[in-house]
Amino acid sequence: MTRFISEAESAALVDDDLALAAAREAFLATGTGSTFPVVIGHSSLPGTRFTLKSGSAGDLAGVKIGSFWPDNTDLPRHSSTIVLLDPATGRLSAVVEAAAANAYRTAAADALAVDTLACKDSRTLTIIGTGHQALHEVRAVSRVRPVDRVLVVGRRADAARNFAAAVTGRLGLAAEPADVEAGVRAADVLVTATTAREALFDADWVRPGTHVSAMGADGPGKQELPVALYERASLFCDLPDQSRAIGEFQHAGSATPVALGAVLAGTVTGRTSPTEITVFDSSGFALQDLTLAAALLRRHSSGVSE
Amino acid sequence: MTRFISEAESAALVDDDLALAAAREAFLATGTGSTFPVVIGHSSLPGTRFTLKSGSAGDLAGVKIGSFWPDNTDLPRHSSTIVLLDPATGRLSAVVEAAAANAYRTAAADALAVDTLACKDSRTLTIIGTGHQALHEVRAVSRVRPVDRVLVVGRRADAARNFAAAVTGRLGLAAEPADVEAGVRAADVLVTATTAREALFDADWVRPGTHVSAMGADGPGKQELPVALYERASLFCDLPDQSRAIGEFQHAGSATPVALGAVLAGTVTGRTSPTEITVFDSSGFALQDLTLAAALLRRHSSGVSE
Repeated sequence: MTRFISEAESAALVDDDLALAAAREAFLATGTGSTFPVVIGHSSLPGTRFTLKSGSAGDLAGVKIGSFWPDNTDLPRHSSTIVLLDPATGRLSAVVEAAAANAYRTAAADALAVDTLACKDSRTLTIIGTGHQALHEVRAVSRVRPVDRVLVVGRRADAARNFAAAVTGRLGLAAEPADVEAGVRAADVLVTATTAREALFDADWVRPGTHVSAMGADGPGKQELPVALYERASLFCDLPDQSRAIGEFQHAGSATPVALGAVLAGTVTGRTSPTEITVFDSSGFALQDLTLAAALLRRHSSGVSE
Repeated sequence: MTRFISEAESAALVDDDLALAAAREAFLATGTGSTFPVVIGHSSLPGTRFTLKSGSAGDLAGVKIGSFWPDNTDLPRHSSTIVLLDPATGRLSAVVEAAAANAYRTAAADALAVDTLACKDSRTLTIIGTGHQALHEVRAVSRVRPVDRVLVVGRRADAARNFAAAVTGRLGLAAEPADVEAGVRAADVLVTATTAREALFDADWVRPGTHVSAMGADGPGKQELPVALYERASLFCDLPDQSRAIGEFQHAGSATPVALGAVLAGTVTGRTSPTEITVFDSSGFALQDLTLAAALLRRHSSGVSE
């Protein structure tokens, strides 16, 4: 009765369309669904971490177990397993390994925010961060806006050069390294995908009309954006309470971000002018994982990509 | 790579010996292992509940998803799925469905406490509660002490009668219904396995030398024992912090229970005299689930019972 999708299967099944549709479904469900407290655990091996994100919405209920084993060498350091419960009985319904798919899921939240909040003619995308997730962000965002120039900001010049080459080689987009000030000043869309614990740039460098997606902060003490930016920007996020607890907006003082789901549902207005600065914070929530798993299971059943 | 044991398989593999050995391993590991905050979630279906208990010890790390779907009719209302992570890589290692096995696991904690704390010549076992778990408690406890008489206390006379008949019919033990005062006064070992939210009996009824196992309280507001008993008894539990937060000892004021694992490890003395009253509270912890799953996987591999 229990269905199982292996890592190899989900990696072959996932694509940006599936992930974006699943993200839209998840964000729309934030108004009515439930998410439960995040657990951060670890194994006996020093430095390891696993995270439990659980929730329910409609006929979905379950948990995503995300793990980070920093000493992995042959295997990715992050892995992800989504467990779904049968909505009618509470029994185990499906287990979906989704390490590769998880990167699509996170990038899809970014793409959804950009599609909802960024100016339609956004052409210059600046990415701060050159890690594994960053390429997924560039690919997903460039599918929802007419991006024709990617500026890459990294702490190490060689990493930024290599990443720009990968953007051009794999995605066919013009890309070049940039220093952080030039990158931020030129951005129509600015994406941060780092593990930073302090602001990456100066708020004054952000031009009117820019959309900023902060993808990195997902725990106490993490920070990518300058606090001064919040006075000039409209703030959006996935889950306001969580964003203010462990996301970027833990540094936002009394400012109250708007749930992106409410904008998607049409109950709150998103961008109101071409000169507004919009900021979206992604801290990640279980419904994204549950809708992703359900979408993978549907595609698996339909035999697509098999 | 991922191993899976279905509900039917684990139900066929589990027995009291396996569960008791797994419980001993888990309680001994409480000194060095880790348990993480318990999450209580629910689905969209009213009244449903799922609980995440996670932990790690030695080469075990993972989570037990326990679910309670009160409207189940054809299937048990409780189910249980244990997910183990590979200690070397953090990736999914095994999934074990364990609803039937979970009852053995909980009863094994009780048997371990009785074996560690009760007088050796305990012959009269009184059980308060006549639900599904109660029969498991009687069976497991009667294996570690020379029980020759079981007194059954239930809210409804017919339920107590039927349960006593089941104890005799299935376990071959003399059993009879009793009112609560007579049952408590006669008990060498007293086990409570109810969903009560207030004390089930009067503290004065407990004879010197009695061992009491409180198996029911596992959430805020639940209570089975009279607070006055704590002044006369030595208090033991599975995890002191959890027991004081969501277990029986949330009602124990400033009294500090001793971890049963410390008694098993020999670092703390258990019963010190034949007239001492010992109380054990079980609130349940993830390491019990992880060691149970590991034991089931070992037996599954060895082909026993297949």
